[in-house]
Amino acid sequence: MQGFKTAAAACGMRYRGRPDLALIMVDSEAGGTAAGVFTTNRFTAAPVELCKNHLESPSIRAILINAGIANACTGEEGYRRALEMARAAGEAMKAPAGSVLVASTGVIGMQVDPEPVRREMRGLVESARPDRWDEVARAIMTTDTVPKMSSATVEIGGRRVTVGGVAKGSGMIAPNMATLLAFVCTDAAVERRVLDHWLRSGAERSFNCITVDGDTSTNDSLIALASGAAGNPVLADVAGPESVLFGQALEAVLVDLAKKVVIDGEGATKFIEIEIVGAPDERSAKTVALTVANSPLVKTAFFGEDANWGRIVCAAGRAGVDLNPDRVALYFDGLCVFREGTPVPGAEVEERAASAFRRKDIKVRLDLGMGTASFVAYTCDFSYDYVKINASYRS
Amino acid sequence: MQGFKTAAAACGMRYRGRPDLALIMVDSEAGGTAAGVFTTNRFTAAPVELCKNHLESPSIRAILINAGIANACTGEEGYRRALEMARAAGEAMKAPAGSVLVASTGVIGMQVDPEPVRREMRGLVESARPDRWDEVARAIMTTDTVPKMSSATVEIGGRRVTVGGVAKGSGMIAPNMATLLAFVCTDAAVERRVLDHWLRSGAERSFNCITVDGDTSTNDSLIALASGAAGNPVLADVAGPESVLFGQALEAVLVDLAKKVVIDGEGATKFIEIEIVGAPDERSAKTVALTVANSPLVKTAFFGEDANWGRIVCAAGRAGVDLNPDRVALYFDGLCVFREGTPVPGAEVEERAASAFRRKDIKVRLDLGMGTASFVAYTCDFSYDYVKINASYRS
Repeated sequence: MQGFKTAAAACGMRYRGRPDLALIMVDSEAGGTAAGVFTTNRFTAAPVELCKNHLESPSIRAILINAGIANACTGEEGYRRALEMARAAGEAMKAPAGSVLVASTGVIGMQVDPEPVRREMRGLVESARPDRWDEVARAIMTTDTVPKMSSATVEIGGRRVTVGGVAKGSGMIAPNMATLLAFVCTDAAVERRVLDHWLRSGAERSFNCITVDGDTSTNDSLIALASGAAGNPVLADVAGPESVLFGQALEAVLVDLAKKVVIDGEGATKFIEIEIVGAPDERSAKTVALTVANSPLVKTAFFGEDANWGRIVCAAGRAGVDLNPDRVALYFDGLCVFREGTPVPGAEVEERAASAFRRKDIKVRLDLGMGTASFVAYTCDFSYDYVKINASYRS
Repeated sequence: MQGFKTAAAACGMRYRGRPDLALIMVDSEAGGTAAGVFTTNRFTAAPVELCKNHLESPSIRAILINAGIANACTGEEGYRRALEMARAAGEAMKAPAGSVLVASTGVIGMQVDPEPVRREMRGLVESARPDRWDEVARAIMTTDTVPKMSSATVEIGGRRVTVGGVAKGSGMIAPNMATLLAFVCTDAAVERRVLDHWLRSGAERSFNCITVDGDTSTNDSLIALASGAAGNPVLADVAGPESVLFGQALEAVLVDLAKKVVIDGEGATKFIEIEIVGAPDERSAKTVALTVANSPLVKTAFFGEDANWGRIVCAAGRAGVDLNPDRVALYFDGLCVFREGTPVPGAEVEERAASAFRRKDIKVRLDLGMGTASFVAYTCDFSYDYVKINASYRS
């Protein structure tokens, strides 16, 4: 991907002996265009507030990310420190602090210390190189067990354009470790408004479709940054065919990253796709999908490899959507196990359902029989390890 | 409690070697007044449908309850079989089938077999005795580890009136075992409309305040039955002082039973009270309370005895209520741990909070600083055993 340099370092703010600070720079003084989608939690971390303000700037030069301390619930002092981090990066890059975005993940309620960030900053800028995305993906991890990267390429106006991103999970929030952070970069030349449009619609079909435990962190941030270095004619018309191509590439990367976050969900042993079809509208489809995907009884059944159609239809039934039980049909990997208000009888059905649940990837389809809208949610199971990770995190 | 007889038997419909069938009879041909509150799940079990229909009758003679099979998701055949159970009880008691209520708990999707019920029915009626509520409480258990009973007495019009009840939990639903069933009987003479009023308002402050895992079963039923045998002047005016006294006694029994259900929640090791105060209205208070009470991250923190204020404020922040983080204050057993957007500093605070979390009963108070409305939710923690019970239930 052209027009970017990245670097990572171990600043030691909280972790010891591992990279915990990452920098993504646009490799041109003109900077790039950027867009962001942030947590809807009323408790918003200081770096999220800072990003919202700095995104007002027409040009963004860099994203600075630290792992270990989330700088959330830290009051005005937290904002001041987030700003100091942006200033340190700006000084080292000879760029305005207002052109630097900051993201943090880690313990809630602790102040970040800008001093080690400042100390590492010059070295970070000097060591920045193209195509070191894996270092960034590693430096932003908290309870994640694997780094998460994805990319796609597409031809636009005769130029090869790349969209690439990194993300971290892996519970939605924790104590308070784990937040959803994703940074998607592209060398496409694209107007901010167009980038913003595709980021928002892509988020709806990716990060807004996943759930590990239903919690939304104080720090959740999805940021897109475009360098324009691919040299394609600037994408200025959202509805234009090349803009749509770009949007599809961006969405593909977002969906892939989102799935990787779920697969690496805390304690997860299964990857589950909950597809709701036949809904009266997309909102209802989404409500049912997420109610099923977040039900602890459903999630423990997946962990136990128990093809428990009862828990799934019951979770759907309490989702607040005016279902008609007689019209609902449930499928496991294409096999109908429930319809017309009762389970499909037969030992063979039970046997095949059980076998579907023994696989690592499970597809559940629930047809509400009411309309034509649909929604797919991605989730994971609830295991002993989920409880273990989250019961003993801080000790 | 006057005017009732009860009995229990092992009919062997699904369990072996334990009582699984219970009968609560009003000991008079005139029967009693009754009221019910039922699941809001769109998948409603056949006995719930039957109860709704039979409650149209002005006089109720009995409640017949079976454990082991829930008769949910069983289509029209399920209703026919529930009705056969009511008929069997009616015949044995020489009462109309329409004066018998039926409740079932257990596996979803399986048909009940009315045959063993019919076989036991005459013996059940003949063996019925006053004051055998403990047998009823035991016969209706599924994953419950202890029988749940409660009672209260109050003087009305110079007569001693008793309200007594039994309940079972212990997940909200399961595979499908465990449903919330509660039967509250009283010897008060009370008009149906008055009984209905106090049952509904009492349910709001008891069973609608508890959550084990956020799931609402297909079978959840709360039924009140009044024999009138205490001989008090009939309670006919909801707003009258004696009606209010009666309502308070009923509510006390409901709250006590509801708390017992939570304490015996699947895998629970802690009993947690989540009190929201300073809310703009009761609906917002309830939304925040239940969002916190259902958060897996909050519940695993309780299990881990981790005084994790971060997870609690974050769950509150995502509840969809327009909070101002700077006005929120959080207390553990009366100790303020968070206010003005940041944690209260100090090793002493942390030490005392940690000690509060080591107790079996934990009180959490969250002041939203917005108004005067409040709500209290009761919940339990999420343990390894919750996962174990629910991952391996059917095997």
